[in-house]
Amino acid sequence: MTDKPKSHGRLKVRPTLTPRTLMEETPELVSTWTARIVTLFPGAFPGVLGESLTGRALHEGKWRLEPIDLRTFGEGKHRNVDDTPAGGGAGMVLRADIVARALDRAAEGTPKSRGRWPVVYLSPRGRRFDQAMARDWARAEGVTLLCGRFEGVDERVLEEYGIDEVSLGDFVMTGGEIAAQAMIDATVRLLPGVLGNAASADEESHSNGLLEHPQYTRPAEWRGRAIPDVLLSGNHGAIEAWRREMAEALTRARRPDLWAKYEENKG
Amino acid sequence: MTDKPKSHGRLKVRPTLTPRTLMEETPELVSTWTARIVTLFPGAFPGVLGESLTGRALHEGKWRLEPIDLRTFGEGKHRNVDDTPAGGGAGMVLRADIVARALDRAAEGTPKSRGRWPVVYLSPRGRRFDQAMARDWARAEGVTLLCGRFEGVDERVLEEYGIDEVSLGDFVMTGGEIAAQAMIDATVRLLPGVLGNAASADEESHSNGLLEHPQYTRPAEWRGRAIPDVLLSGNHGAIEAWRREMAEALTRARRPDLWAKYEENKG
Repeated sequence: MTDKPKSHGRLKVRPTLTPRTLMEETPELVSTWTARIVTLFPGAFPGVLGESLTGRALHEGKWRLEPIDLRTFGEGKHRNVDDTPAGGGAGMVLRADIVARALDRAAEGTPKSRGRWPVVYLSPRGRRFDQAMARDWARAEGVTLLCGRFEGVDERVLEEYGIDEVSLGDFVMTGGEIAAQAMIDATVRLLPGVLGNAASADEESHSNGLLEHPQYTRPAEWRGRAIPDVLLSGNHGAIEAWRREMAEALTRARRPDLWAKYEENKG
Repeated sequence: MTDKPKSHGRLKVRPTLTPRTLMEETPELVSTWTARIVTLFPGAFPGVLGESLTGRALHEGKWRLEPIDLRTFGEGKHRNVDDTPAGGGAGMVLRADIVARALDRAAEGTPKSRGRWPVVYLSPRGRRFDQAMARDWARAEGVTLLCGRFEGVDERVLEEYGIDEVSLGDFVMTGGEIAAQAMIDATVRLLPGVLGNAASADEESHSNGLLEHPQYTRPAEWRGRAIPDVLLSGNHGAIEAWRREMAEALTRARRPDLWAKYEENKG
């Protein structure tokens, strides 16, 4: 590894069931988890990420957000970053040479290992983002996200830089910025200390392969609809069993694909 | 239908191959496509939606964005909107009675038909958003999106209001706001006149069941990588064939699920 020495940051949490050697007992200092965003709209960040839990964590320095303005790497008076598609067609394509300059900037001071610092192009052609990917990213030291606009980016820069294409889902957006925010939100909330109550990440949808059970709160009756008796029983075992049963029933009904995987893992 | 009369707006586009009767020839006036967002963070909108193509279209009045501040429907000095989960557990649950008041406000002046105006709770338990859903929403007159925070919303309000749960993907976010923005972006760009060049919506990923072919632009050679000859040939038939071949190869390699559907539809 050719990474620069790290001089600041939080203690790295390393969950392990095996005893560590004396040398490894020395806490490993790592820098703060950082999202670098290559974008034509740096002003769109932090956006919603500046609110609520992610916003509080950002202000508390639990993670960092570094937009990198692609426009500043453009050419000519107008700082052009794109050109017409080779072979014709609608829209414009981000130029390989321009994007490469921005990616070089984004790579400064980051580990070369893609496992330690994923470099991602947000694209509907990519692998779909999911909870497992959010967990991988949260275990990394940071992530660089390249946001496309127009018809996309010259294929050669994706090849040359070994960039992973990741998709928010099977739909098309005008650009990658909102997708970047969605993925950062899902990742940041898994960082240590970001969720006020760490327990809430364990019970939710997709953490155990099931959709989450229904939730209720006061009033006990509303428009003739009552909170299920068991939830008011104080019997924690029964409540646990009911919630599991509901989660399983929901998953079976709504997501046969997840249910099949869940059954497979159980068996 | 019990909808209020509409007195302003754009002409409704009704693509049809069959001749229309004289009465239907009269253009039907509809109001501007509108997204109503029930949220605790109204200030997070328009966010990225205020930029680029969606932003320009918003400023030109091609669509409307109406955040509805859930907090104003809260109770007590602190305008409380949530309470602890019945049966215990982490986090807080949005109260059915509070959410109902906000949904009533959001429903004012909208069609009762869910096909003409979907009412959606953004939740990882929901049906996954995709390009077909974006097209359905774009054909509707608007959409109401309820953004959750904390542990979710009391199940009874979802039942009572017949709310559709829609998920951005198999991952969990701190709230529904970014998911709402993603879905609005994907929908708004399909509205008439929003994409500068309408052709670009036809060739892209997921519009024809295939992932999009690679794109290239100048320079013709970059770091020893050349644009494929065929794209510079000027032979439009050959270019078309190459792009189709690439799109098929990409889809087959990356998304066997989409490829299977595509083959099924072809055959």
